[in-house]
Amino acid sequence: MGGDHGPGVLVPGVARAAERLAAGVGFLLHGDEARLAPELARYPALKPRVEIRHTATMVAMDEKPAQALRRSKGTSMWNALEAVKTGEAQAAITAGNTGALMALSKLILRMSVDIERPPLVASWPRDKGVTTVLDVGANVDCDAERLVEFAILGEAFHRAAHGVARPTVGILNVGSEDMKGHEEVREAHRILREGRFDLDYRGFIEGDDLTKGTVDVVVTDGFTGNITLKAAEGVARFITAELRAALTSTLPAQLGAVLARGALRAFQNKLNPPRAAPLLGLNGVVVKAHGGASERDVADAIGMAADLAQSDFAAEIERNMRKLTAAVGESSPADGAAKT
Amino acid sequence: MGGDHGPGVLVPGVARAAERLAAGVGFLLHGDEARLAPELARYPALKPRVEIRHTATMVAMDEKPAQALRRSKGTSMWNALEAVKTGEAQAAITAGNTGALMALSKLILRMSVDIERPPLVASWPRDKGVTTVLDVGANVDCDAERLVEFAILGEAFHRAAHGVARPTVGILNVGSEDMKGHEEVREAHRILREGRFDLDYRGFIEGDDLTKGTVDVVVTDGFTGNITLKAAEGVARFITAELRAALTSTLPAQLGAVLARGALRAFQNKLNPPRAAPLLGLNGVVVKAHGGASERDVADAIGMAADLAQSDFAAEIERNMRKLTAAVGESSPADGAAKT
Repeated sequence: MGGDHGPGVLVPGVARAAERLAAGVGFLLHGDEARLAPELARYPALKPRVEIRHTATMVAMDEKPAQALRRSKGTSMWNALEAVKTGEAQAAITAGNTGALMALSKLILRMSVDIERPPLVASWPRDKGVTTVLDVGANVDCDAERLVEFAILGEAFHRAAHGVARPTVGILNVGSEDMKGHEEVREAHRILREGRFDLDYRGFIEGDDLTKGTVDVVVTDGFTGNITLKAAEGVARFITAELRAALTSTLPAQLGAVLARGALRAFQNKLNPPRAAPLLGLNGVVVKAHGGASERDVADAIGMAADLAQSDFAAEIERNMRKLTAAVGESSPADGAAKT
Repeated sequence: MGGDHGPGVLVPGVARAAERLAAGVGFLLHGDEARLAPELARYPALKPRVEIRHTATMVAMDEKPAQALRRSKGTSMWNALEAVKTGEAQAAITAGNTGALMALSKLILRMSVDIERPPLVASWPRDKGVTTVLDVGANVDCDAERLVEFAILGEAFHRAAHGVARPTVGILNVGSEDMKGHEEVREAHRILREGRFDLDYRGFIEGDDLTKGTVDVVVTDGFTGNITLKAAEGVARFITAELRAALTSTLPAQLGAVLARGALRAFQNKLNPPRAAPLLGLNGVVVKAHGGASERDVADAIGMAADLAQSDFAAEIERNMRKLTAAVGESSPADGAAKT
């Protein structure tokens, strides 16, 4: 039901995803049957694979998470998450309210790791593929263990979602030497190097490595990640606006832009990475499509959810999380002793 | 002597700056006379305004700051800073080694504020003018008082360097509400709002406000600032490289690019903000031109240094710094009591 465009985009998105997925994959549509059924009627081939689960209420796009929590039981978002909890569905997808989704996911599915909130994940454009960046805003204060957890979650996600067998991982910092940065990143760096995790950790990377694609998965706290992402989006918007202004500024430029139209469109597409993001660290697969998601974006989000649900993602995370517990235990002998 | 191109670019840069500055402004050129004199001979009009101060040694571009400190006495960089200290010069300009410059400036001129190192200042491109951002890398760990000092320094700098009578100031954060972000930014926000400083503080801003130009001066810690700046530079390089690739990909695109050449050049220039940066918080004016500075960049750095030297910059900073001491004193009654 969610997103800026509602069922009119969501149902066609499901239809598009269904064409790509195995015939055995079915869909539960949670929401207002009176709005969903007419949309669904336009896709006869899809109908046998879909079941509408009627709900009278939904979480509004502008509702505050605390408010949504209080009155969320029985909403379409609640029921979609509940279906994952009971095992009826293997993944939940929504284009709805992000804050409410994070709060409800945590309440219904519970965190599988020791992070306060599911980190927000961004796909950063680069020449080939994308760079996975987390956290871009959910957890402002992150200690070293939280950063290591992001590395574990992001690595497993990147493999499952992008089919990269052995994703490389780095921590975002102000330089590449061991002594650079603040205490939290230095300690996370040490744990990742010494913890014998089943992941390819490459050390510190810098801001410009995000577009260079130096590593596949970039770990950072939610404060730095959020500001960096929004600053980069601002720069990209600024540049494309200036380019548009330049290409309409003179008659020769306008003619040139017409001639180069195809190339400029391909250029623009390359700057727009996928707009689906997983909520990681939960007991279950949840994927958030952008609020302004198009049909294609919705289909991409469903494809991502299917990839995650069919992968060994959860087991891989669990194995590395056990190594984190061991690594942190080893490095704090005093704490360990106190517990005996 | 410094920079990637040495006297061959620096002396022409001085000549270009001299044309713009009042005839009373003179120049001391510190360095190897055998290299400086032939360059200077090419500018007969400049000669009467210049004095060469011969030095046999210079700080190398790749020297580590600690190494430079040990053997820096009598280098061209040392002597340029010493001339500011003795009052013989009103400002020092260099395109040399940034790390060594920070270390030597601090040693010779001393900090006038309670910050470990002069914050690095960046000029961020936007539609009209530039956004001043600090710190972009010198001070990784910043408490609330350090952030307030950056606000005071950046505001006075922006007025002196860009002729904006009343620059607006904001703190970079993950949202605009008072409770957003970590403790340091929330406390700095509180001090700036309540401290009755002589500056136009506008509150929290977000990453995309940097290019929007929401405020003139953006305050952040050196960790976030460095990563954000480098990420943005990476995005800008990525986009222009992709654009170049797109515009050479097909014959129509190539023709289009030729037609739009003038507009595309104007576009490119707009993305390149000034590459001169002040070292703030010192007892004296020091301006760093980019290592790869062109003649024009050197002239811009000299112009910035002259603007700062002729302004009330230092007195304005001192007045606001006294208010900071008062504001912090008020908010810590326990500390104040202990001192009586």
